[in-house]
Amino acid sequence: MKAQMEILCFGNELLIGKILNTNSQWLAKHATKLGIKVKRITVVADDVEEIAEALHEALARQPNFVVTTGGLGPTFDDQTLEGIVKTLDLKLEINDDALKMVEERYQHYLGKRKAEQTKKETARIKMAKLPLGAEPLRNPVGTAPGVKITLDETTLIVLPGVPSEMKAIFRESIAPLLKKEGGGKTLFEKSIFLHGIMESTLAPLIDEVMTNNQSIYVKSHPRGLRKGIEIHFSTTAQDFKTAREMLTEALSQLSELAKAEGAQIQFEE
Amino acid sequence: MKAQMEILCFGNELLIGKILNTNSQWLAKHATKLGIKVKRITVVADDVEEIAEALHEALARQPNFVVTTGGLGPTFDDQTLEGIVKTLDLKLEINDDALKMVEERYQHYLGKRKAEQTKKETARIKMAKLPLGAEPLRNPVGTAPGVKITLDETTLIVLPGVPSEMKAIFRESIAPLLKKEGGGKTLFEKSIFLHGIMESTLAPLIDEVMTNNQSIYVKSHPRGLRKGIEIHFSTTAQDFKTAREMLTEALSQLSELAKAEGAQIQFEE
Repeated sequence: MKAQMEILCFGNELLIGKILNTNSQWLAKHATKLGIKVKRITVVADDVEEIAEALHEALARQPNFVVTTGGLGPTFDDQTLEGIVKTLDLKLEINDDALKMVEERYQHYLGKRKAEQTKKETARIKMAKLPLGAEPLRNPVGTAPGVKITLDETTLIVLPGVPSEMKAIFRESIAPLLKKEGGGKTLFEKSIFLHGIMESTLAPLIDEVMTNNQSIYVKSHPRGLRKGIEIHFSTTAQDFKTAREMLTEALSQLSELAKAEGAQIQFEE
Repeated sequence: MKAQMEILCFGNELLIGKILNTNSQWLAKHATKLGIKVKRITVVADDVEEIAEALHEALARQPNFVVTTGGLGPTFDDQTLEGIVKTLDLKLEINDDALKMVEERYQHYLGKRKAEQTKKETARIKMAKLPLGAEPLRNPVGTAPGVKITLDETTLIVLPGVPSEMKAIFRESIAPLLKKEGGGKTLFEKSIFLHGIMESTLAPLIDEVMTNNQSIYVKSHPRGLRKGIEIHFSTTAQDFKTAREMLTEALSQLSELAKAEGAQIQFEE
């Protein structure tokens, strides 16, 4: 069975619709490409109780990975680590490696003198306090380090909400981990667009093609009058050649069936 | 206390990162504007078990509203209503009002003769099968009706995943309902952008302003070097005048404090 992942996003700005959740799409896409199955995405507020509850529920489902984004910075509402230690019944302590990472970033921004001055400031120390046993992950483009916590069933990965920082830590420290777990299998996909046929007429044809091609997933998406109905074919495989052969077979079967019902077919580039 | 809502999105295409979840942002934004507090957004696959589990969990938290999107069409993987009846221990039966709505759309597309021909087709009948006691909601721009189910603690609203259809049903049938529950209170917000100050220096200033302005929520968002740090002020109020006065007061307090720390302030239009 494929390694499974849940994504947890913490942020009021997502719950009031102020911003689009581009982080969860980016994480889902990259994890999928590395052979991981994303089972659930959950968004709750930057709030200790909400974070703890959502994390508790996710861990109870025992996915291989839980990746969180948001709430890692220095402000009062960056409560992710508080929520995590509540769920795991741990304490936050200053982590020497994390402190070194935070101080290096401050020296980088401000010069050595100021960095020393500010060592005692709670807002900055906050970012160096990790759950006992956690591993800080270098943040190549910002201050707050990511965090990795290895639990019995699940590896918990805690990333910042700022997209550039989230992506940088993912690429440097998380992608290699997922690739190993994903067993080198990758998602391959292809779409065609149909016109002149209704989705309800297509439904039994898609059923037939999926029955004949057990490793291919086929899904129709109505994309409006101009673009027609998108038929999305996807599969996971070790190599591109195998995937292409399987996708091409399913695609041509569906094209024949749809043409017989009067559909016009447009192949995606 | 404000009326609460959870949003559930069903769709594999969201879990593989193929598409951005614009539906949940749109719903969250519009519900918030109508005075409703969105507590959680959950994305799971188009799968009876996954849908049933996520809905079961959401209903256990007893929000006033659960709004779902996706999985209402005619294809094999449109399994939302199957998942719902599993959770609620109900059966799907042909709903006469829903059947009339679906048939009217088919007549509109195909003309009367064809609509009669297709009455028996499972893929089309599927969209007219609702849980017993459910109310179909007219879909002004597509075929599958929305569904409203009134439970003891929660009103469950089931919308299609196609954005134009989801929005049309929301505007016609859901917005009036939410407005009534929201008590006429509306979210007001304003942002300023700061340069030349670090988020960790800002953190205690924001704390101070929120302590002095209990009904205002203030949140900092780093937006990169060019845009600076966005400070987002929000509040809910009955009228614009009250909201503006409260926001202006908090905003000028924070501006003074930030200027004293050397920040440059840029007001949003």
